[in-house]
Amino acid sequence: MIRIGVDLGGTNLRAARVGADHAIVAAHRELVGEPRDVDSIVARVALAIEQLADVPEAHAPIFDDDPGEVVAVGVGIAAMLRGDDGTVANSPHLRWRDQPFGARLAARLGPRFRVGVYNDANAVVWGEVVAGAARGCRDVLGVYVGTGIGAGVVCNGRLVAGASHTAGELGHAKVRWDDDAEPCRCGSRGCVEAYLGGSYLDRAVRRDLAARPKQLARVVALAGGAELVTLAHVDAAAGEGDAYALELWEQRAPLLAVALGNALAVLNSERLVLGGGVLSRCPVLLDHVVTTLHVAAPAACVEKLSIVAAALGDDAGLVGAADLATMQP
Amino acid sequence: MIRIGVDLGGTNLRAARVGADHAIVAAHRELVGEPRDVDSIVARVALAIEQLADVPEAHAPIFDDDPGEVVAVGVGIAAMLRGDDGTVANSPHLRWRDQPFGARLAARLGPRFRVGVYNDANAVVWGEVVAGAARGCRDVLGVYVGTGIGAGVVCNGRLVAGASHTAGELGHAKVRWDDDAEPCRCGSRGCVEAYLGGSYLDRAVRRDLAARPKQLARVVALAGGAELVTLAHVDAAAGEGDAYALELWEQRAPLLAVALGNALAVLNSERLVLGGGVLSRCPVLLDHVVTTLHVAAPAACVEKLSIVAAALGDDAGLVGAADLATMQP
Repeated sequence: MIRIGVDLGGTNLRAARVGADHAIVAAHRELVGEPRDVDSIVARVALAIEQLADVPEAHAPIFDDDPGEVVAVGVGIAAMLRGDDGTVANSPHLRWRDQPFGARLAARLGPRFRVGVYNDANAVVWGEVVAGAARGCRDVLGVYVGTGIGAGVVCNGRLVAGASHTAGELGHAKVRWDDDAEPCRCGSRGCVEAYLGGSYLDRAVRRDLAARPKQLARVVALAGGAELVTLAHVDAAAGEGDAYALELWEQRAPLLAVALGNALAVLNSERLVLGGGVLSRCPVLLDHVVTTLHVAAPAACVEKLSIVAAALGDDAGLVGAADLATMQP
Repeated sequence: MIRIGVDLGGTNLRAARVGADHAIVAAHRELVGEPRDVDSIVARVALAIEQLADVPEAHAPIFDDDPGEVVAVGVGIAAMLRGDDGTVANSPHLRWRDQPFGARLAARLGPRFRVGVYNDANAVVWGEVVAGAARGCRDVLGVYVGTGIGAGVVCNGRLVAGASHTAGELGHAKVRWDDDAEPCRCGSRGCVEAYLGGSYLDRAVRRDLAARPKQLARVVALAGGAELVTLAHVDAAAGEGDAYALELWEQRAPLLAVALGNALAVLNSERLVLGGGVLSRCPVLLDHVVTTLHVAAPAACVEKLSIVAAALGDDAGLVGAADLATMQP
């Protein structure tokens, strides 16, 4: 069986031919750009898939290549799904709502291709389980803090998709529910993403730069100018003991730690995989989160827990989606 | 295979022979009482099991009974477990800490008996899945609010035990983490159990009875005396619009709703089974929890959710533990 993984985000469309050993045999990458209506994207995704399906396996004799061989196609998509046919309920990244993406892609590709559509974070976590930082683990929670917060759950060695393919929405766990809770892009308030998601943290720092620039003097100096400030500079300042940066991290870190701890109380995972741009670029913040997690989670639930960094980077979603697609009925 | 389920709590020791159709064929019940050291309890549990193992299946011809037949014994225990051999890490109900209960029971019973030990709430939820309110469901969260709060999780049709058999500790999800968070019997603070568990709610009402008796006049009148007040009277008063009772429920209900909603955001369960003495005796509180849950949980995660009352009562744990025991390797 030929395996192809696709990672469809708001910026990049990536696709790869994946070997049975989870190694990437051939890869393709393009910008999503415009137009990004479903029909245009389906056509471009299908073209990338068809080209990769014709690449012979590097480690298999070319004469074994069978043009009629089934192609398992797994697409990880930055979207909230509904049901198991790849209907996108909502994707702010692609600006889609209630779009039959999976059915359209399957119709466009034809019967040789077997299409599965997965939430991107779910696919990424599955990739880490089959070939990365959680290899061999049966109970895993993977959490990615980038622009937003995505997560995936594996229990008893299987990905948890849930009743409507929306499991792993840890980013929308509530950490505040008073009247002052921060609004979240999802339409609700007090979600942990609205406090720790990169775009929300960025906005909070910009707001502080405007409102109380003196307190951010060290952050600005590290960045070489107010307009150049990133979260990495805030983290570097926190590492030096800067009061503003430390206070921000001390306010925010416990909120993510509580959301993680509460999920671990329910799941009793053996491994917590942490990834995403915010955590990889902000080691001081990560350290605060991990330290607080050990206070927030019930001791018995984290006794066997190991916390590791994601290992496969951008490839995880491709590898995970391709593997999930091979498991389809 | 002969199936026996045991439910070992702080008050009752119950055991039952369970048919392949999950019906209870014969049952036994005694008070736990004293002494309750591990050896004494193991001896009494073993005796109950041996007697039940000799009862012929009511619906099978007696001449089919084979005295050498394997007996699958599942014990649901009110304890936090560690590992898969039935070691009790901690049971406030039995006053045990780090006791090798499962190994002792298996040794006492001998090779004909195959012993599995499970957290009681996990066993109860599994019982509801195989024969009760969640029959046929693949993704289930079951939460029981009694003296404390217990829970069980089923994903992809399988019970989630977790890395150290402590999955489902939703009662110890944190709903407050400020300095004034309520202390919990588990040693931590701010656990949802410390706000909604029956013993904690009871204590809060007793405290209010002493501190501001006038505000509880209606509750006391419904009970027929301050010393007779139970949570059911508080709930009845809330149903009449009594200000004290409504305020208490409006403070507490959202905390359970958030804990449930956050778990559902991660699990995307198709069914939420609610049970336990507090929820069954306090319909107004339950209604507040369910209403708030639909605000607290991400809409997409509860789109397919049905919320039902537990159906099997005290039998659920017996049926669930017996069935789990048949699945052991």
